Amino acid sequence: MSNAVDQIIANYAGETPGVIGNLRRLLNTGTLAGTGKLVILPVDQGFEHGPARSFAANPAGYDPEYHATLAIEAGCNAYAAPLGFIEAVAHRYAGTLPFILKVNNSDSLGGPEQPCSALTSGVKDALRLGCAAIGYTIYPGSGLRNEQYEAIRSLIAEARAVGLPTVIWSYPRGSGISKNGETALDVVAYAAHIACQLGAHIVKVKPPADFIEQKEAQKPYEQVPKATLAERVQHVVQSSFNGKRIVIFSGGASKGTSELLEELRQIAKGGGFGSIMGRNAFQRSQADGAKLLKDAMAIFKAA
Amino acid sequence: MSNAVDQIIANYAGETPGVIGNLRRLLNTGTLAGTGKLVILPVDQGFEHGPARSFAANPAGYDPEYHATLAIEAGCNAYAAPLGFIEAVAHRYAGTLPFILKVNNSDSLGGPEQPCSALTSGVKDALRLGCAAIGYTIYPGSGLRNEQYEAIRSLIAEARAVGLPTVIWSYPRGSGISKNGETALDVVAYAAHIACQLGAHIVKVKPPADFIEQKEAQKPYEQVPKATLAERVQHVVQSSFNGKRIVIFSGGASKGTSELLEELRQIAKGGGFGSIMGRNAFQRSQADGAKLLKDAMAIFKAA
Amino acid sequence: MSNAVDQIIANYAGETPGVIGNLRRLLNTGTLAGTGKLVILPVDQGFEHGPARSFAANPAGYDPEYHATLAIEAGCNAYAAPLGFIEAVAHRYAGTLPFILKVNNSDSLGGPEQPCSALTSGVKDALRLGCAAIGYTIYPGSGLRNEQYEAIRSLIAEARAVGLPTVIWSYPRGSGISKNGETALDVVAYAAHIACQLGAHIVKVKPPADFIEQKEAQKPYEQVPKATLAERVQHVVQSSFNGKRIVIFSGGASKGTSELLEELRQIAKGGGFGSIMGRNAFQRSQADGAKLLKDAMAIFKAA
Amino acid sequence: MSNAVDQIIANYAGETPGVIGNLRRLLNTGTLAGTGKLVILPVDQGFEHGPARSFAANPAGYDPEYHATLAIEAGCNAYAAPLGFIEAVAHRYAGTLPFILKVNNSDSLGGPEQPCSALTSGVKDALRLGCAAIGYTIYPGSGLRNEQYEAIRSLIAEARAVGLPTVIWSYPRGSGISKNGETALDVVAYAAHIACQLGAHIVKVKPPADFIEQKEAQKPYEQVPKATLAERVQHVVQSSFNGKRIVIFSGGASKGTSELLEELRQIAKGGGFGSIMGRNAFQRSQADGAKLLKDAMAIFKAA
Amino acid sequence: MSNAVDQIIANYAGETPGVIGNLRRLLNTGTLAGTGKLVILPVDQGFEHGPARSFAANPAGYDPEYHATLAIEAGCNAYAAPLGFIEAVAHRYAGTLPFILKVNNSDSLGGPEQPCSALTSGVKDALRLGCAAIGYTIYPGSGLRNEQYEAIRSLIAEARAVGLPTVIWSYPRGSGISKNGETALDVVAYAAHIACQLGAHIVKVKPPADFIEQKEAQKPYEQVPKATLAERVQHVVQSSFNGKRIVIFSGGASKGTSELLEELRQIAKGGGFGSIMGRNAFQRSQADGAKLLKDAMAIFKAA
Repeated sequence: MSNAVDQIIANYAGETPGVIGNLRRLLNTGTLAGTGKLVILPVDQGFEHGPARSFAANPAGYDPEYHATLAIEAGCNAYAAPLGFIEAVAHRYAGTLPFILKVNNSDSLGGPEQPCSALTSGVKDALRLGCAAIGYTIYPGSGLRNEQYEAIRSLIAEARAVGLPTVIWSYPRGSGISKNGETALDVVAYAAHIACQLGAHIVKVKPPADFIEQKEAQKPYEQVPKATLAERVQHVVQSSFNGKRIVIFSGGASKGTSELLEELRQIAKGGGFGSIMGRNAFQRSQADGAKLLKDAMAIFKAA
Repeated sequence: MSNAVDQIIANYAGETPGVIGNLRRLLNTGTLAGTGKLVILPVDQGFEHGPARSFAANPAGYDPEYHATLAIEAGCNAYAAPLGFIEAVAHRYAGTLPFILKVNNSDSLGGPEQPCSALTSGVKDALRLGCAAIGYTIYPGSGLRNEQYEAIRSLIAEARAVGLPTVIWSYPRGSGISKNGETALDVVAYAAHIACQLGAHIVKVKPPADFIEQKEAQKPYEQVPKATLAERVQHVVQSSFNGKRIVIFSGGASKGTSELLEELRQIAKGGGFGSIMGRNAFQRSQADGAKLLKDAMAIFKAA
Repeated sequence: MSNAVDQIIANYAGETPGVIGNLRRLLNTGTLAGTGKLVILPVDQGFEHGPARSFAANPAGYDPEYHATLAIEAGCNAYAAPLGFIEAVAHRYAGTLPFILKVNNSDSLGGPEQPCSALTSGVKDALRLGCAAIGYTIYPGSGLRNEQYEAIRSLIAEARAVGLPTVIWSYPRGSGISKNGETALDVVAYAAHIACQLGAHIVKVKPPADFIEQKEAQKPYEQVPKATLAERVQHVVQSSFNGKRIVIFSGGASKGTSELLEELRQIAKGGGFGSIMGRNAFQRSQADGAKLLKDAMAIFKAA
Repeated sequence: MSNAVDQIIANYAGETPGVIGNLRRLLNTGTLAGTGKLVILPVDQGFEHGPARSFAANPAGYDPEYHATLAIEAGCNAYAAPLGFIEAVAHRYAGTLPFILKVNNSDSLGGPEQPCSALTSGVKDALRLGCAAIGYTIYPGSGLRNEQYEAIRSLIAEARAVGLPTVIWSYPRGSGISKNGETALDVVAYAAHIACQLGAHIVKVKPPADFIEQKEAQKPYEQVPKATLAERVQHVVQSSFNGKRIVIFSGGASKGTSELLEELRQIAKGGGFGSIMGRNAFQRSQADGAKLLKDAMAIFKAA
Repeated sequence: MSNAVDQIIANYAGETPGVIGNLRRLLNTGTLAGTGKLVILPVDQGFEHGPARSFAANPAGYDPEYHATLAIEAGCNAYAAPLGFIEAVAHRYAGTLPFILKVNNSDSLGGPEQPCSALTSGVKDALRLGCAAIGYTIYPGSGLRNEQYEAIRSLIAEARAVGLPTVIWSYPRGSGISKNGETALDVVAYAAHIACQLGAHIVKVKPPADFIEQKEAQKPYEQVPKATLAERVQHVVQSSFNGKRIVIFSGGASKGTSELLEELRQIAKGGGFGSIMGRNAFQRSQADGAKLLKDAMAIFKAA
């Protein structure tokens, strides 16, 4: 057992040993085992954006086997995906690679007028498939916010009882938020805080931009250091119960390697607990993708 | 056991001993124990207004531990917060500091068109976390009023059966009420009365302003003394089953100390059962916040 | 047992003995016990119109105790009120004064666009509190009519199974009905009939005015005697399954004593089963209110 | 918060905050608050042995009020009793005096051939009545052992979920155990260990005698120090997960004061967590009973 | 991933990925990770034989912490114990040390006339505590056989659905079997086969002696090589679906080191999948116990 992991786990006192055990599995797997940091491979883009937009750049990614292999080869802490992708590989990798079952998903073909993912799997699936956690997307700012907050409340309770922690993808989106506002510092920090208040064990948000969306927030943010990404990440971590909840950052759309690695350095410097990086990893060749994930781990390991 | 507490408890005859027991815990904890008065620290502003708007003024407040500590140091009767903040400290303070689990919450990023908080936790969470009560916000005046009244009815029934009393935050809001009307005397008194009729054990409202919103109410209010806040508080207490239900007053946005203390004196003079004071307490330094809470308690103790 | 009560009860053959038993309690309590007539004190105006509009004229009425006392002193058959008011006195008067729990309520601060009260308590509350019946308001004419008819259907079934009769407040209201039409003879008779068809054991309507709202009804009403209130009441009673369901009449807004007593005489003359009189009773001094109720009983007793 | 209590609570890490909170209430109430020691007043003897055998010596004890009063006056940590005795006083003392609801009971008029108490109340009763724990008797050695172990397993799970800890009265009894064997050192230590393995939060056993019942245990006990009661108590504490579960000792039949106090000194010296003392307390006058309980507390406080 | 583990896992094709995942966790933990062999530390003797008989020889063993530490230090694949012992350490070791929750237990103070353990915990406990498997004892030969076979059938189904494999302790015992017969080759092989047929994922039996209990079995056993323990173990493995189910052997009462190691060599030589060794390990000093476990692992590793 490592001090870094123990210190994080201590913030979850009061949780069931089952939840604690799975948090430990996530923190004690892969290259970053024992460091208290996480690099997770998420592959729900096929569902969210369509297969070709996701996998044409590296057609190996059409195969669910590819991603589990990539995650293991690169030494990731965990692999997150929707039901089908997990079912396709669970038999082979359960007990070796921690899975995070993404229990709700949205496609880009259509849907409700207000942003709201569909529940596509559940806690019983996660147990059946040997997963280490469930994942759920909320859209703070959506007119269907209430439905989502109430759904995640039930899911967390159900998952806790059977020893599964919950990861919340907290993505602000909806009629009251501008496109830029979705990654505004005030909005991202707020979204992280909401996820923590809803009982998330791990929170995933986007890297916050140097922009304040809400008029009422302008003044308080005058005193928040926010010039660098590291400073903004630090504020998001602070907003996540002063760092007492694990908050990780997504990489967003694929981008240049040096730009991405600099972003990760800033996240690490700001105290982010890690990165959840999909397209940037699987849209390259396996060798390049694995290298990038390993470089990411090296950055967090050094932090 | 004190006479003051016994007299209040007598108004709840017919309730289960479990509910009575938790009301006693609330009334017999902290500096005001036994006086029949309450000063409660509520910290749901991170959820309701965002973390920076709530905690940037005193960054210690980003940490859930801070508020539990502040409540204990200041001698509060109870600490009210959403699920995440309670979960982060329950293991350490359960059995010492009475928690009020705020089971619904609204953020200011977006939501349904008519005011309606999302259910973010429930009675089972409150039991699991060792809470002494649940809290729920209704918005009289909302087009979604019916949904809220029916939800709180179910929650109160569920909570009563397991010995938990219910605090209703009654905040008039909606298309039929003007901005000023939200704190109008007739509207606040009405909102308090509705909460009592719905079965609330404790009602929280805003201090009523010297303003009458509803046309039909103008005439009856001619004979209601309302020049001072104390008189207006007295009318709200009267509207809360003639003082047979505990009604407490929120402090609202942070303001100057002397202004705030004068407000509390008026509330105490008018027979208010106490104050639930968040931003005014935690947006100052810990020393100043604790002092303010203690000054508030001194005012109610003297009443 | 009295003949009058037996004759009424005979119309409910087929009901569960529990429902019959509670109908008997209502008919065999107070000054009118055994006469087959009822005078009921309802106090839901605090919820429906606000506390000051209801109680400022006689501030004793802010106190829930007051109304129970008034009902007993005056010799009423029953006392009807929302959850909170009943809970505040049930412990003291259960088994002595029959309660009718008004399980839905509407406030005048706002709400759904179409008239629809919120469900604020239920059958289990009625049992817990020792009530003799439940009461429910429907708004024939409302765009949300279907929701209300379906809700009352479930409630009656639930209540019957546990031995509780149901009183329906049948108040025509909605976009298709003119203000005058709400008390039009054809509309009131129609509303009473709908309530009977929905399975009400007791129906409450407003005294019908000499006005026909619906074009299609003009012709048939040519042959219905309707010049006097007594005749119109007779028609409403006739429309309530030819008098085989108990139908009682509300007093409406407070008015002059002699005007009110004349109205009651007409109701009695027309075969109305009684009166349900709130504001006219509790907005006077206790002595005056009790006297009025007793005068009303005298009128029905003489009928 | 006291160090002594915190150290004990740390042994229950993994429990829900609700359970922890109620353990804290038990440890932080009365004269021994904060010492980590407990003196509990149990009054189930009326059920177990009959009222006159229990209360004739001090007829005040026929009244359920007497025992709650005695427990409070003496400064006990808790009061344990069957359903009826708790119901008779819960409304008055809930929230002040922690109750332990004894959910199974046996009378001495008859029953199954093998020792087995009847389930006489449950977890929902405990919540309704505002209790801090439930209590349950097992009879290791009974031919109906399996039924009891399986029943307590379900009860503990149900109680944990709602934040209630469980006290197991572990009384060896049955055809395979001699009368002396019921308090034999090996048997009492074994009974305490079984209760801990079944998941008890607090275990109650009888003071162990200097006697070894089981043939197979003779040899291992050669090396266990057992000459004094303190040494034997120490062995029982050791057998209760090396002191990581709270184990308290009953006083048994009433006896002379000096003999009893010496017994308590030995229990305290041996590291016992406290005493649960019924007949010795309530079969004396109230003054004498309270004095004895206070003397007992003084002994544990000094330990 | 190792070939040895993959070959074993292939025999469980058709099981849920969750069950497979936990079998992998058991096979991939500790010193023997990846070898397809298991050495498991079981500590239920406190419950089965009493604490002093189990722990007096090495009093450190009274403490539940000791055994988890010993299992980790020695590099065991898993630690098996009853509810209480697991609860006492789960929070600290969940996710690190695989737990097998022994869900039924028997004490030696008394019980039903026919051998039958009591159900003392269940699948939900196993999930809550983060266990990797459940364990259950059947007594083939018991008059209560049917109850046990039916209970384990339900438990396996419940456990499978949530991803937990089941270990069956198969111990022949009952009126129709002689004392020697309990370890007779025909009886042990039969007991192993029954456990496999009941759906066990892992079977635990005692090392078979050179003795045939059943008259009808004498003749067929003439052609079964059985002179050495290795040959007899081979027959038990053969009887366990020709080695397609994992069968491990208990060590029984503590014995001399060289005798024990020779027994293990025979088990390994006969193709046994491993050893589950309690008293021989924890009744020595921690250093000696750990050394013995490591020596056992070395034997299986070399096999």
